[in-house]
Amino acid sequence: MSASGSKFARHVFVCQASRPAGAKPSCGARGSAEILNGLQEGLAAHPDLWGSVSLTPTGCLGPCFDGPTIVVYPEATWYCGVKRDDVKRIVDEHMVGGKPVADLLYRWPAEGDDE
Amino acid sequence: MSASGSKFARHVFVCQASRPAGAKPSCGARGSAEILNGLQEGLAAHPDLWGSVSLTPTGCLGPCFDGPTIVVYPEATWYCGVKRDDVKRIVDEHMVGGKPVADLLYRWPAEGDDE
Repeated sequence: MSASGSKFARHVFVCQASRPAGAKPSCGARGSAEILNGLQEGLAAHPDLWGSVSLTPTGCLGPCFDGPTIVVYPEATWYCGVKRDDVKRIVDEHMVGGKPVADLLYRWPAEGDDE
Repeated sequence: MSASGSKFARHVFVCQASRPAGAKPSCGARGSAEILNGLQEGLAAHPDLWGSVSLTPTGCLGPCFDGPTIVVYPEATWYCGVKRDDVKRIVDEHMVGGKPVADLLYRWPAEGDDE
């Protein structure tokens, strides 16, 4: 693609922010490196997705108490509390199948909730 | 917002990947920390955007030779070669005005170009 605009059908962002034990929770302390690795492996196993799905590690995405957190654009799908065993479903159902994994979707706390 | 889905109207990602002098170029080596700081300050000056625009530092976004790189979702606007002086326009025209800054849009190299 030579014109401006995105060349990716999907862009997956995975929080890698890390804080030490005893500090506010963080995705890093809750296993997000393993989630990122799992997504890299899962996407690598689907050559049809190479070049169309981008995967990017990030700093803090916000829901620190509920991580590990993933956000997928352009559909703005937020996943929290992702476990290593959930990664295959995210790849198969969402990245390949095009349908976000409903039971992993984050429910944002109501405004004013302590977070 | 308590249901799943994004609570942000826009999500701005700014590459902060850094490589040492002599290595492949990187957004960090090309001033991306200053761009991130500028965006933080620029957004902070618009209370109407608080809570509706999220700003997240990232690892490598890909166009290392053309950074600093910013991508804005859900519209998937890619900006490259952003300078500190460009930040005010990105905030005013895109974040506030809702219209991407046309002359800053990245033109992806054609497939097969050396990048």
